[in-house]
Amino acid sequence: MLIDKLISRIIDLDSPIVVGLDPRLDKMPQYLKDKVFLVRGKTPESVARIFYRFNKAIIDNIYDIVPAVKPQIALYEQLGVAGIDCYIKTVSYAKSRGLLVIGDIKRGDIAATAEAYSRGHIGRLTIEDTIHKAFDEDFITVNPYMGYDSVSPYLDDCQKYGKGIFVLVKTSNKGSKDIQDLATADGLPIYRHVGNLVSEWGNGLIGEHGFSSVCAVVGATFPEEGAVLRQNMPHTFFLVPGYGAQGGTANDLKDMFNSDGLGIIVNSSRGITEAFHMEEYKSFGENNFAQAAREAVLDMRRDLLSVMR
Amino acid sequence: MLIDKLISRIIDLDSPIVVGLDPRLDKMPQYLKDKVFLVRGKTPESVARIFYRFNKAIIDNIYDIVPAVKPQIALYEQLGVAGIDCYIKTVSYAKSRGLLVIGDIKRGDIAATAEAYSRGHIGRLTIEDTIHKAFDEDFITVNPYMGYDSVSPYLDDCQKYGKGIFVLVKTSNKGSKDIQDLATADGLPIYRHVGNLVSEWGNGLIGEHGFSSVCAVVGATFPEEGAVLRQNMPHTFFLVPGYGAQGGTANDLKDMFNSDGLGIIVNSSRGITEAFHMEEYKSFGENNFAQAAREAVLDMRRDLLSVMR
Repeated sequence: MLIDKLISRIIDLDSPIVVGLDPRLDKMPQYLKDKVFLVRGKTPESVARIFYRFNKAIIDNIYDIVPAVKPQIALYEQLGVAGIDCYIKTVSYAKSRGLLVIGDIKRGDIAATAEAYSRGHIGRLTIEDTIHKAFDEDFITVNPYMGYDSVSPYLDDCQKYGKGIFVLVKTSNKGSKDIQDLATADGLPIYRHVGNLVSEWGNGLIGEHGFSSVCAVVGATFPEEGAVLRQNMPHTFFLVPGYGAQGGTANDLKDMFNSDGLGIIVNSSRGITEAFHMEEYKSFGENNFAQAAREAVLDMRRDLLSVMR
Repeated sequence: MLIDKLISRIIDLDSPIVVGLDPRLDKMPQYLKDKVFLVRGKTPESVARIFYRFNKAIIDNIYDIVPAVKPQIALYEQLGVAGIDCYIKTVSYAKSRGLLVIGDIKRGDIAATAEAYSRGHIGRLTIEDTIHKAFDEDFITVNPYMGYDSVSPYLDDCQKYGKGIFVLVKTSNKGSKDIQDLATADGLPIYRHVGNLVSEWGNGLIGEHGFSSVCAVVGATFPEEGAVLRQNMPHTFFLVPGYGAQGGTANDLKDMFNSDGLGIIVNSSRGITEAFHMEEYKSFGENNFAQAAREAVLDMRRDLLSVMR
């Protein structure tokens, strides 16, 4: 079960951290932009090239201290074809360095369409008598609004190819209250119902650590809700965004960790990859942006470990 | 307002129809597959080439009898980079023939990420002092599960660039009941709340026909729910999937049309593009797949007009 591999890496590295690879052009090191734009012009292809070089350096400097990275596909997709190419290369490079990759794609669609997404991202594509992989992430994030039949194709491919998914339950943004927090007739908010569905969907994919490869996204910015979900979803592993830049602190995560320190993996994106812009890490200089990122990961790790023990 | 352009075209052509461009390899004409595979091998690039030729022929044969096409990005994305390239070329070719394009992408994410999706699909991408467009659909479909701040970036770009969105409210699949139908404390199902939110979000974008460029997706497979939503969302235009292959009939749509015949645009994908495989249109032969599609559109039009009058 893929979730076991993720948990083993978390234990081995003592690091429940996933680094979000969400590159933004205005935050790229100036020397990197200048170099590429000068030779190749100010095109989406150039931006994709800058993003890939940036990601590679980050990966090279963190692959031995975190179990996983999470590229957010929107940041690549906005560049069109060149961006998708960069995304796929980033996934592949991260895997080549032993990292697990969570593709943050948040797809959701009716069954026949979900099958296509699943084939492309975590399954296989059959062309007559040949077999191909397109994106080949380890895990992907999935939107549950369209219900079971919109998720079941992913479940099948998780079984077949040893992959995993993270289903949105309670997201970290302010607007998550608009629909996810609506109270249902039985008094529970929607996200609790979605949580129950996710637990149920994951029953057939529980691994040796007692967690399913069907996981949930639960924001760090709502600690009380997170604690309740943790209690009610004992077999569901959580991906927790919202730490750092979005306002979540280690203290907010305390009740989402189990007593053995397992149960969640915490994402930080800008807080790591853009550390070299922050006061704290400015001394690294922009040429050493990737070393600054490593230092930020080590600081985050210390911060998290302080509430886990 | 873009919605006015869509409605004008529907009125001019007397055709509230959008053709879904959802190519499936096993349904492509054999002669087309043979030709491309022979020269270029069985690769994702070849499949993308087959899909594009297929789409072009369909577009050439329907552009004067429907106002819009709706490519489903999942069917392209599963091919990786080559598929995205084919999707973008399909969008561009359809627009060059005067069709409006609804990109069926069902994206949804937190604000900063939604901004990237919006920039790439309906907005503009700024690279230093240059401006670029990546996908450039007219409308896109959007998933509301993450709430207002996950939708607002699209609203801004709709204003700025004269674009539109269709937000998922009550989808056509069976699993739509799992979350969308959950009853809330006030007795209304979730999808009614989402409907109310969509109406509200669209208030600033209402055009001269009384409809907003912020539209809704409401499945043909739930006629009663659709009729109630129609009553409660007088300024919201509906994209209605589920007609034909998924089981929805013209009769199911009766109460979703306003008395003036406006208010919805009905999607058919396989029922049109794969008509040449059906008993009814088999006589066209696979070489004339696009003429069969045209005939299927004309039959669908007759069918819809019979309940609109």
